[in-house]
Amino acid sequence: MSEQGTGMVRAADEQQTREQALVEQVVASFDHAQDARLKQLMQALTRHLHAFLREVRLTEEEWKAAIEFLTAAGHITDDKRQEFILLSDVLGASMQTIAINNEVYANATEATVLGPFFVEGSPGIPLGGDISFGAAGQPCWVEGTVTGTDGRPVPGARIEVWEADEDGFYDVQYDDDRTAARGHLFTDEMGGYRFWGITPTPYPIPHDGPVGALLAAAGRSPMRASHLHFDVRADGKRTLITHIFVRGDELLTRDAVFGVKDSLIYDFVQHPAGTPTPDGRDLANRSWASVRFDIVLAPAHRARNPFGRQESVNGQCG
Amino acid sequence: MSEQGTGMVRAADEQQTREQALVEQVVASFDHAQDARLKQLMQALTRHLHAFLREVRLTEEEWKAAIEFLTAAGHITDDKRQEFILLSDVLGASMQTIAINNEVYANATEATVLGPFFVEGSPGIPLGGDISFGAAGQPCWVEGTVTGTDGRPVPGARIEVWEADEDGFYDVQYDDDRTAARGHLFTDEMGGYRFWGITPTPYPIPHDGPVGALLAAAGRSPMRASHLHFDVRADGKRTLITHIFVRGDELLTRDAVFGVKDSLIYDFVQHPAGTPTPDGRDLANRSWASVRFDIVLAPAHRARNPFGRQESVNGQCG
Repeated sequence: MSEQGTGMVRAADEQQTREQALVEQVVASFDHAQDARLKQLMQALTRHLHAFLREVRLTEEEWKAAIEFLTAAGHITDDKRQEFILLSDVLGASMQTIAINNEVYANATEATVLGPFFVEGSPGIPLGGDISFGAAGQPCWVEGTVTGTDGRPVPGARIEVWEADEDGFYDVQYDDDRTAARGHLFTDEMGGYRFWGITPTPYPIPHDGPVGALLAAAGRSPMRASHLHFDVRADGKRTLITHIFVRGDELLTRDAVFGVKDSLIYDFVQHPAGTPTPDGRDLANRSWASVRFDIVLAPAHRARNPFGRQESVNGQCG
Repeated sequence: MSEQGTGMVRAADEQQTREQALVEQVVASFDHAQDARLKQLMQALTRHLHAFLREVRLTEEEWKAAIEFLTAAGHITDDKRQEFILLSDVLGASMQTIAINNEVYANATEATVLGPFFVEGSPGIPLGGDISFGAAGQPCWVEGTVTGTDGRPVPGARIEVWEADEDGFYDVQYDDDRTAARGHLFTDEMGGYRFWGITPTPYPIPHDGPVGALLAAAGRSPMRASHLHFDVRADGKRTLITHIFVRGDELLTRDAVFGVKDSLIYDFVQHPAGTPTPDGRDLANRSWASVRFDIVLAPAHRARNPFGRQESVNGQCG
């Protein structure tokens, strides 16, 4: 090797040494965190963040662009708009966190994102009641059962549902304090449930901010596949937060937040105007849809400690 | 293996499959970004972010805490306060980016962080002039040379310097529009330079926000080791942004932003009151300090393209 070549190799080695030494220095700075879980999180974050920077050889201009992106996200975020959750969503980080916290258990129904439109205090409806409360959309009959992974019915399970109207808006996105297209009900003695809602339609996530600009630059759609939200809970069962999606929706393969799971795609059967309804309801000569969604709940987790002090979250507790 | 054991193994396999499939789905969503560098950055970010989430098994409560942290950082950030840069700094990401963009080149002086207190339009001073402009602190004589890595002097190099006063504040942190403890000068025909400043003293980074809370939780100090900022530039040379630090400062090993490099620690020699000054200046019976800092500049980089379209940043261009 030429003298110049040797010098270049030495410089490259020294460069690697400097970069690695910095990683170790930052990792060590968290050695004395009182909370063992905080230490674990920050040390892992440091290693992965630096691995990213070193792999892509981030330029200083790109670093500045990242700072500006985060600043813009912070400034558009308020009580009603949460750009950091959108960012987590479009990077699949929200879905990954849900996957991690809802581990596969036998045939339990899969979970998906909660989304920003859940609100406390939804109206209760009787079995067979209507959650639409006047929201615009095609009437849709939803029915099914709630069982455990052992196949036994779960009576008294609380089912909360919410969805956008046919214009793609949730009630809370209107300025008139309406409550519509949301409600809760309880399963009967056989674990059965049924209610009227509206047929889900697609809508975009808010895309007039930095996250929308990122999606545009990446050639990605801001649209969410059509879906109906469920929150299902019962004593002794793991709470299930999920959606059901509409088979045939062209957005299923490019949902902006990666919420779609094959197992959550259901047949929404179309019924022409005049077809008799399951409960004899008179729909005034409108068409309607119906879907069957049988829900399977896993047994309750051991309680997770949010700060991980008492229980290892990777299952390697001593 | 028992039937139950086999089921658990299958569930664990299925869990890994689901998590990995999600990563690949998010990576693929960036396949059609028009800008190849954006695609590379977002796909690498996705892989490293998901690797972090999966390694630590992030809980949903921790995910919420992260969203709240970023939201608080966004809300405290304004024209004068930049919490995201502080966050980058205390995670060593700023220093790593600088290391990556200022690769080792022979004996060239090492770079360190710019910091938030550089401002355009500093006053010019003659060689041997005073940059303090009334800033409180012990007078400090700074001198040295600017050379290339070939040892040849660099005449006419522009040296900009700035520093905090003895109370730990930069001029821009006062409300009275003062300009003090900053200035620029040019090297002489022999590459030499000399000026009066003030002896650096330690100060904390702003720590009344979420980054300060993180440092406190981690048992880390918000203090920066005492330093004097330099920005040195000359035709045909790589611009050097660095500091010099004070040998003996107890904060050298725990600088909040990881800016300290061994090669940047210098002897600030103390001179008792009455000791003659290098330029005969009368210091009215005050003590003073002096430091020699010989600066070595690398040759200019090939121009880096901030979006990396035309030039590979990892040196593997075709």
